[in-house]
Amino acid sequence: MSTTYSMLGGEGPDSYREHSKYQGALVIAAKENINEVISTKLDIDTSSNLINIADFGCSSGPNTFNAVQIIIDAVELKYKGESSLKDKEFQVFFNDSSNNDFNTLFKTLPPARKYFATGVPGSFFGRVLPRDSLHLGVSSYSLHFISKIPNGIKDRDSPAWNEEIHCSGSSEVVEKLYFEQYKNDVGGFLNARAQEFVSGGLLLLLGSCRLNGIQFFESVEGMMVDCIGSSLNELAKQGIIDQQKLDAFKLPIYATQADDLKQIIEDNGSFTIEAFEKITHGKGEYPLDTNYLTLAFKASLGGSVAALFGQDAMEKTYELVREKTQEMLPQLAKAKPGMQFLIVLRKN
Amino acid sequence: MSTTYSMLGGEGPDSYREHSKYQGALVIAAKENINEVISTKLDIDTSSNLINIADFGCSSGPNTFNAVQIIIDAVELKYKGESSLKDKEFQVFFNDSSNNDFNTLFKTLPPARKYFATGVPGSFFGRVLPRDSLHLGVSSYSLHFISKIPNGIKDRDSPAWNEEIHCSGSSEVVEKLYFEQYKNDVGGFLNARAQEFVSGGLLLLLGSCRLNGIQFFESVEGMMVDCIGSSLNELAKQGIIDQQKLDAFKLPIYATQADDLKQIIEDNGSFTIEAFEKITHGKGEYPLDTNYLTLAFKASLGGSVAALFGQDAMEKTYELVREKTQEMLPQLAKAKPGMQFLIVLRKN
Repeated sequence: MSTTYSMLGGEGPDSYREHSKYQGALVIAAKENINEVISTKLDIDTSSNLINIADFGCSSGPNTFNAVQIIIDAVELKYKGESSLKDKEFQVFFNDSSNNDFNTLFKTLPPARKYFATGVPGSFFGRVLPRDSLHLGVSSYSLHFISKIPNGIKDRDSPAWNEEIHCSGSSEVVEKLYFEQYKNDVGGFLNARAQEFVSGGLLLLLGSCRLNGIQFFESVEGMMVDCIGSSLNELAKQGIIDQQKLDAFKLPIYATQADDLKQIIEDNGSFTIEAFEKITHGKGEYPLDTNYLTLAFKASLGGSVAALFGQDAMEKTYELVREKTQEMLPQLAKAKPGMQFLIVLRKN
Repeated sequence: MSTTYSMLGGEGPDSYREHSKYQGALVIAAKENINEVISTKLDIDTSSNLINIADFGCSSGPNTFNAVQIIIDAVELKYKGESSLKDKEFQVFFNDSSNNDFNTLFKTLPPARKYFATGVPGSFFGRVLPRDSLHLGVSSYSLHFISKIPNGIKDRDSPAWNEEIHCSGSSEVVEKLYFEQYKNDVGGFLNARAQEFVSGGLLLLLGSCRLNGIQFFESVEGMMVDCIGSSLNELAKQGIIDQQKLDAFKLPIYATQADDLKQIIEDNGSFTIEAFEKITHGKGEYPLDTNYLTLAFKASLGGSVAALFGQDAMEKTYELVREKTQEMLPQLAKAKPGMQFLIVLRKN
């Protein structure tokens, strides 16, 4: 059974489009590092006039267009002055689940783009492209999704029952099951990419993770997700939302520790880690602002809450989240920082 | 300025999905011919393990899935028994304009498909795929669309002003302008495909055209489109629909004569005509049934009428079309048949 995860569409401060600026800032901040690594580490057959690029977990834009353009610019910079450059064509494969809004993605493609755009529907935990066809790939803020909630987590009678809506690290057994699922999923992702990439091709992973030794509940994200969970629990106790539905409402995300992710990649063995860098940028940390935090987590999780419990219950939940966030500010001020990363993998 | 052309979505007898069965029957009827031509004429580098296939003008399914599967089956049949077959992978590029409903296409992909599916948004009158990347292509009932209404046709003060909603052949000057646009568009289509196809690759064109020497207004399609046009004119005279809007409402379609199409392909010179066949099948001609005819042309053109004049005016139009069709039955019985074709072109 796979899980889905929806963002709030539309425009305005509650929307995913607004929230996604936060995520989109990372690839822009990492631009110089990407130029450098493509210049020095990309090692593909230069006689081929077609360069294939994919974004795994592209969503409906616009961040994916920036990421892709930064990669193409870096490739053109690398081959600048070589006569073969003028004959090179770029084909970009925008991949996401078949529930993604590809219609919006296609209608908002940059009109002046210099690449052939294609959409690829399907789960990136399995194969979505032909063997040995891909030269460059990117995946931004996607690998923290797990493909399913581990067994037992949703079941009140199971020893692995999790009262919270996700894995905050406060229960060891829950943490372990989430981590096993994550390890399995990242392994599946790398195995699929290993078949799709040509040898010497580069896969860029962007996202955020925990610093080593830090629990998720010690971070702003962890505290906010716990806060949404306890708000939902309160509304269930008041009979405003259905307790059984809430029991089954677990987020399919896992925040890994940096060293664990490194270990999973090394154990997989298909790719060489060329860079594992902490990227610092202005939008890297959440501001200590009740309104901002409430809206940011409404944008990212409100859609899922509304889908299961209805729009009214969702609004009530976030009223409660706002109150709790205000009370939590001293605690949030002491939250442990996370790490925004650029990981560059070269296919062996 | 480009034009768009919308079909009625949804299910039921008025829907495009129902109407499209009529079009979908052609590729099924042509299956043996396709097997034969792929077996004898496809001449591509067999050392490549990737076979790329495209459908130009795929719409949102399901006909495109049948067409693609028939092609893949034929390729597998051709290479049956060769050891390289087991390593071959198929990638299918579903192309249509960025207004197409790719979300529905992606959600209804055959679950057991043995190919990598990708969507390619963009006008097939220009390039949509990389150079020398395509081995097989198909385009079903798409090349009768023209990319724009020729200048003067919509303008009441122009000598080329057309009172009807399309080119039925009753005005020589209108016919000539439509034909020039058609010739230009088919040429553009072939030039783009010529760059995308590998040498020896096969492009299959399916659709319907006029038999040589027959005017469009002598066919059932021509009579029905004329009938819709005169119904709209009547409603405009009654003030129910806006005359100025109607002046600009011209269908971006042209029904070519078989020999003219052949000539355009030969003049273009990028492809060799390997087959130009009339395909006869059970659904090839419209039944002489008022209800069927009204609903069929409501499915194909009702969406465009409703988009411009509103749902009410569209329903009123088709009430009138139904009456006129009933009166026209003796005339429709004497209509000249069209020709359903399979054209197979090999890239030089």
